[in-house]
Amino acid sequence: MDDKLVTAGVIVIGNEILSGRTQDTNLQFIAQYLVGKGISIGEAQVVPDIESIVVRTVNDFRARFDYVLTTGGIGPTHDDITTDCIAAAFNVRVVVNADIENRIRSRPAPDDVLASRLRMARVPEGATLIDNPTGGPQGFTIENVYVMAGIPLVMQAMLSTIEFRGGAIVHSRSVTAHLGESEIADELASIQEAYPRIDIGSYPFYRNDIYGTSLVLRSADESALDAALEELCAVITQRGQTPLDIERD
Amino acid sequence: MDDKLVTAGVIVIGNEILSGRTQDTNLQFIAQYLVGKGISIGEAQVVPDIESIVVRTVNDFRARFDYVLTTGGIGPTHDDITTDCIAAAFNVRVVVNADIENRIRSRPAPDDVLASRLRMARVPEGATLIDNPTGGPQGFTIENVYVMAGIPLVMQAMLSTIEFRGGAIVHSRSVTAHLGESEIADELASIQEAYPRIDIGSYPFYRNDIYGTSLVLRSADESALDAALEELCAVITQRGQTPLDIERD
Repeated sequence: MDDKLVTAGVIVIGNEILSGRTQDTNLQFIAQYLVGKGISIGEAQVVPDIESIVVRTVNDFRARFDYVLTTGGIGPTHDDITTDCIAAAFNVRVVVNADIENRIRSRPAPDDVLASRLRMARVPEGATLIDNPTGGPQGFTIENVYVMAGIPLVMQAMLSTIEFRGGAIVHSRSVTAHLGESEIADELASIQEAYPRIDIGSYPFYRNDIYGTSLVLRSADESALDAALEELCAVITQRGQTPLDIERD
Repeated sequence: MDDKLVTAGVIVIGNEILSGRTQDTNLQFIAQYLVGKGISIGEAQVVPDIESIVVRTVNDFRARFDYVLTTGGIGPTHDDITTDCIAAAFNVRVVVNADIENRIRSRPAPDDVLASRLRMARVPEGATLIDNPTGGPQGFTIENVYVMAGIPLVMQAMLSTIEFRGGAIVHSRSVTAHLGESEIADELASIQEAYPRIDIGSYPFYRNDIYGTSLVLRSADESALDAALEELCAVITQRGQTPLDIERD
C-alpha cells in the first residue's frame, strides 16, 4: 500500500509450539518491534523440527519477503536442526565459526558438555553473526535470513542488535465503541473505500458483560489516519455511543 | 511416526496477529484440544486478510493435511473475507444459508444492522454448518476444511462441536532438571536413537536465577515412553541432579 513497503516473513521452528505445550510469544514481539522499524510482517509459519519442511519454508519465504526471521532450534541438542536446515536451503556447507567457538570455550565445562555446546558454533558457510547480548552463543545471518534463538529473552536480545533497513513507518489510530460490528459495518466499508491506503480492522469483543468493537486504522499517512478517525468517531456518535479509548501510535 | 497418524494444518487469518496488535492464543488451544483427539498439527500459518494469500494457503494445506482448521475473518465487516476465500479455493459460489439466516433474523435489529449481520449467513455452496453454542452465527465445513470464528471463546465453542476422526492418541512424559541442555545432549541423542518412534524435545529455561532444561517425550506408545523416561531420569541422577516435576499425560 505504501510507496516503499518493506516486508518480513517469520518462521517459528519447534514441535513444542505445534503440540500446544508452549505458547509462542515471539511472533507478537517481533511484529511490534518491526512495526517501529517500518517493516510489516507479510506471513508467519510455524513449522516442526523436520528438515524438509524447514528448508521448503525458508526457501519459499526468502524469495517472497525482504527479510526472513527464524526463531528456535539453534541449541546444543539433537532436536536443534535449524543450522543444518538453513545450510541445506542455501546449499552451502556447515562450518565452525571461531568467534562463537571462542565464546563457548571461555566458559569452563567438562569435555563432553563442551563438545555438545560446540554444536552451537556451527553455522552455514558465508554466514555472519547476530550478536547475543545475553552472553550465550550468537545467532547468524545469511543473505536475507536472520536466525535467532527460540527462548524469548535471548531472541529479543539478538533482535535488538540487528540493523534493519525499513520503509515508511506504519502508524495506527484506534477507537473502541460499545456497538456491535454489524451496527457500523456499512459505514466502515464506506470509510475503507474512501481511504484505500488505510488498513481498517474491526475486532469485536465481549467482556464484563459489555460487548463492543475495537477499530484499528493503520497507515504510513498520519493525516489520512486522523481524517478517517474523525469520520469514524462521528459514526459512533451518530449511533448514540461515545468513542472510547482513542489511541494514536 | 505412528501407524495411523492423523494430521491437521491450522490457518490463523488476520492482520491483527501479523501487526502484533493481538496475541494469538487459538493455535495453542487447538493444538492441545486435537492432541486429545489423536490429531497432530503438522504446520500452522498466520496469513493477512488478503484473498490470494488465504486461497493459496488453504489449497496448499487441504492437499497436505487430513484436516484444515481456520480461525478468523467470518464476521460482518469489510475485512471479513474468509468465506469468499474458501469459496474461491474450492471454486464454488457463495450462497446464503437458511439456517444461519434464521438464527440472525431471530435477533431483532434495525434494517441496516440486519443487512450487515446477514453477511454472516453467506457460505460456500456445498458447505455444512459447524454449530456455535454461544448462539451467534455458525461456522462451516467444506470437505476437510473447518472454518471457525477468531474470537477465542467462540472458536472454542465451535471446536467443541466438531466430530474428528483421530488416530492413535499421542501421550507425553516430561521431566525437568537443573542441568544445562549441553550437559545431557549426548545422552539425549542416544535415547532418541534408541527410541526412534518417540519425539524427544529439549527446552532450556532460566527463571528465578536457576537454569535448567525441560525434557518432553511424546509418542502413542506408552510403554516406550515409560522406558525412555526411566533412562532419562537415570541420566539426570548420574549428572548429580534430581529429576523434578515428572508429568504423565
